[in-house]
Amino acid sequence: MDSDFGIPRELSPLQQLRSQYHPELPPCLQGTTVRVELGDGTTVAKAGDAHIIARAFPHTLGQPLAHFLRATAKVPDAQIITEHPAKRVGIVFSGRQAPGGHNVVWGLYEALKVHNAKNTLLGFLGGSEGLFAQKTLEITDDVLQTYKNQGGYDMLGRTKDQIRTTEQVNAALKACTDLKLDGLVIIGGVTSNTDAAHLAEFFAEAKCPTKVVGVPVTINGDLKNQFVEANVGFDTTCKVNSQLISNICTDALSAEKYYYFVRLMGRKHSHVALECTLQSHPNMVILGEEVTASKLTIFDIIKQICDAVQARAEQDKNHGVILIPEGLVESIPELYALLKEIHGLLKEGVQADNISTQLSPWSSALFEFLPPFIKKQLLLHPESDDSAQLSQIETEKLLAYLVETEMNKRLKEGTYKGKKFNAICHFFGYQARGSLPSNFDCDYAYVLGHVCYHILAAGLNGYMATVTNLKSPVNKWKCGAAPILVEFCRLIRLKFV
Amino acid sequence: MDSDFGIPRELSPLQQLRSQYHPELPPCLQGTTVRVELGDGTTVAKAGDAHIIARAFPHTLGQPLAHFLRATAKVPDAQIITEHPAKRVGIVFSGRQAPGGHNVVWGLYEALKVHNAKNTLLGFLGGSEGLFAQKTLEITDDVLQTYKNQGGYDMLGRTKDQIRTTEQVNAALKACTDLKLDGLVIIGGVTSNTDAAHLAEFFAEAKCPTKVVGVPVTINGDLKNQFVEANVGFDTTCKVNSQLISNICTDALSAEKYYYFVRLMGRKHSHVALECTLQSHPNMVILGEEVTASKLTIFDIIKQICDAVQARAEQDKNHGVILIPEGLVESIPELYALLKEIHGLLKEGVQADNISTQLSPWSSALFEFLPPFIKKQLLLHPESDDSAQLSQIETEKLLAYLVETEMNKRLKEGTYKGKKFNAICHFFGYQARGSLPSNFDCDYAYVLGHVCYHILAAGLNGYMATVTNLKSPVNKWKCGAAPILVEFCRLIRLKFV
Repeated sequence: MDSDFGIPRELSPLQQLRSQYHPELPPCLQGTTVRVELGDGTTVAKAGDAHIIARAFPHTLGQPLAHFLRATAKVPDAQIITEHPAKRVGIVFSGRQAPGGHNVVWGLYEALKVHNAKNTLLGFLGGSEGLFAQKTLEITDDVLQTYKNQGGYDMLGRTKDQIRTTEQVNAALKACTDLKLDGLVIIGGVTSNTDAAHLAEFFAEAKCPTKVVGVPVTINGDLKNQFVEANVGFDTTCKVNSQLISNICTDALSAEKYYYFVRLMGRKHSHVALECTLQSHPNMVILGEEVTASKLTIFDIIKQICDAVQARAEQDKNHGVILIPEGLVESIPELYALLKEIHGLLKEGVQADNISTQLSPWSSALFEFLPPFIKKQLLLHPESDDSAQLSQIETEKLLAYLVETEMNKRLKEGTYKGKKFNAICHFFGYQARGSLPSNFDCDYAYVLGHVCYHILAAGLNGYMATVTNLKSPVNKWKCGAAPILVEFCRLIRLKFV
Repeated sequence: MDSDFGIPRELSPLQQLRSQYHPELPPCLQGTTVRVELGDGTTVAKAGDAHIIARAFPHTLGQPLAHFLRATAKVPDAQIITEHPAKRVGIVFSGRQAPGGHNVVWGLYEALKVHNAKNTLLGFLGGSEGLFAQKTLEITDDVLQTYKNQGGYDMLGRTKDQIRTTEQVNAALKACTDLKLDGLVIIGGVTSNTDAAHLAEFFAEAKCPTKVVGVPVTINGDLKNQFVEANVGFDTTCKVNSQLISNICTDALSAEKYYYFVRLMGRKHSHVALECTLQSHPNMVILGEEVTASKLTIFDIIKQICDAVQARAEQDKNHGVILIPEGLVESIPELYALLKEIHGLLKEGVQADNISTQLSPWSSALFEFLPPFIKKQLLLHPESDDSAQLSQIETEKLLAYLVETEMNKRLKEGTYKGKKFNAICHFFGYQARGSLPSNFDCDYAYVLGHVCYHILAAGLNGYMATVTNLKSPVNKWKCGAAPILVEFCRLIRLKFV
């Protein structure tokens, strides 16, 4: 499985077959003549935040939406970009890998080469760290050959999804200047695109000619608004997970003696869990957003599950499948409060071993109640976006443990008359995000890559590539660009920390 | 996901598509005229055991091999079965579910109906417990409709893979007599087929007219000898697992910071782990058979892994994928000895909480050295085949924990200069064994179902359905039947316990 960056690698027969697929382009991006239509200047959504945003982003706020149209489109104000001087563009995988990411590189490369054979695309090796260290690989047909429609980010790698501190943004500025880049394309999710917005502002202020473009690529599916309908990787991840969950459902129906607690990767939001529920029809799902809205405690959730187990046992069903989003632990109010206290103490430099003695009485009581394995996981340092290390916290095991305890109690008391409760726990995430991308993700990523080129050709800075009307076939897709700031103010951190 | 036995259920579009596939039959089984050729009487392989086997199986030992040939085959001694009086046959899912099991039922049903429309096939509901309790469902076109080429055992269910105690075999005898069965087909792995051999002998001795037939169906792939080339379900399981492992490999190459410890379901033997290794090319696999042959201790294994991690770090590779068969824990001599002591004490009625004080000094020292989560798992009661509850013992976490401890030590001592060691643990099993079966498993199971009919039509008892030449296309497959006792003496327990 080892490969070295840029060296053509050996593909399995399945990977070879997948690499044969050629994504489509919508009519508006076909050929070498594309019109760009700029709308009115945009404003950020929440009026209350507007002045704060305005102060933080004086150079990039209020930019218009852009639409890319075919040359023959009858839109009088749309401008045809006729000149395509040679450009140098850098691209970096900044966020966690998502199936389809490689096709963004492919699409951008194709668009660059179609418009000017002298255009150059540099991939940064090892994510944002490669950007800071100016470690690049020039993308060529040879390099791309074995990565078309392939999963993972291993063509370039990634190590860290952060372009944030003063030191980091200065290093990024120096890299773009030294390498004479006209454009920098940042592939990632919420965190990476927030960083892209800040970087665009920082570059504009520093009069750096490099334009910054973001691309919405994340399995979490949480980078959504009226301009961004979907994220590259979400479709594949939900399909792969749903297939596995369906297999688990079949297993449950066959063995008839287990409850499967399946935790799904997807960060804070429950999009992956919800979509997988719609696709695979498990018996139960706990959605973080509902827990937050109803202010359910962990004991409320346990009671809900136990009541369902008991009701099923009365129908002689002693098996089932329960989905749990990995972000659930942060949606449960008292666990969230506990995590915030722990993270605060860790930030103050308190050693993990000493934290339990310094918690508030309420958090301390909850902490002491929890089983040892979960205590250890809650004490882990938070991630770069200040959330807990959700992939490492086995919420599914915590729930299974507490449900088992309660069911044994009910069995003893005689209120539950079913079979002894047996749980099996799973975490589905890594095995899905490394998957071969679906046709949708192959197409979507490839088109977004093309859109990135047109954003740069139009000289736009601080934009995100967008494709809308995604429910229709590719030939009906609409391509455009939205200032990252628009509708994203909820995502924006106002200072580099 | 809920279904009730025998009620046609709703299929997903993918399941509907899968149900359209029609498995092939090899030429020897096509049409209604099949010749059966009986060879010489067989003997058990190990001469040393022969007299023990002979004493235990006086009625079913020494039966000949059987081959099924097309009517036109030029084999003078082969007998054409011309009469096909109406038969009543029962079928039971006795072992753990494996993808393809439903197609054995389909194949047998088709063969029964082709030869005599009055033939009846009864499925036992809920595995061997359904057999004992005579809970049946008559298999019809309607029942089969939504289970063709589908995974799981949920058409009939299963609860227990045991037909062993005097009480159980008597209940089986009574069921077959009460239901006037001409044949009983037992679908399962090593344990179930061993039970089938005993049951056949017991029935023969009791002059019960019901003939017992076994079918090799198990994801473990451990029911192999010169007559049984493969087990139904193994192909699918290895393909699904290999796909997931390949995704994990892609993830490892992309994130470049984790070692993934993936434990694979497959019981005592390492067949699944080995086949998945060949298909997916991970960085390392620990095979139980090699550990046993080299008498490696757990510390030897940890050292091997740590040395590999260190060597890779020197090439600037801080990631990798390591496969671990679930049976490994029983292959490591000192852990096996510990498990045997624990199981012995459990059998004597010692409570799990008190066991650690009653272990031998050596086992006690090892036990106390282990982290708490694994202690709890080692104390679980053994399975029906006397092995540990391998699916519940997180050997991958134990290894990851010990490797991390050792790598941290080496890091401190300066002998290891790589990045901090990070492990992610996975158990792949339930999500594969519930999968839709591969074409191979669909075909193989369907053909085996047909073979079961011909075994019964020939009046054979205590046989296993066999298909050989499986590497070739279906039209070259050879069908036959082998006395379960042949070459199986290593599997046979000599007393009902």
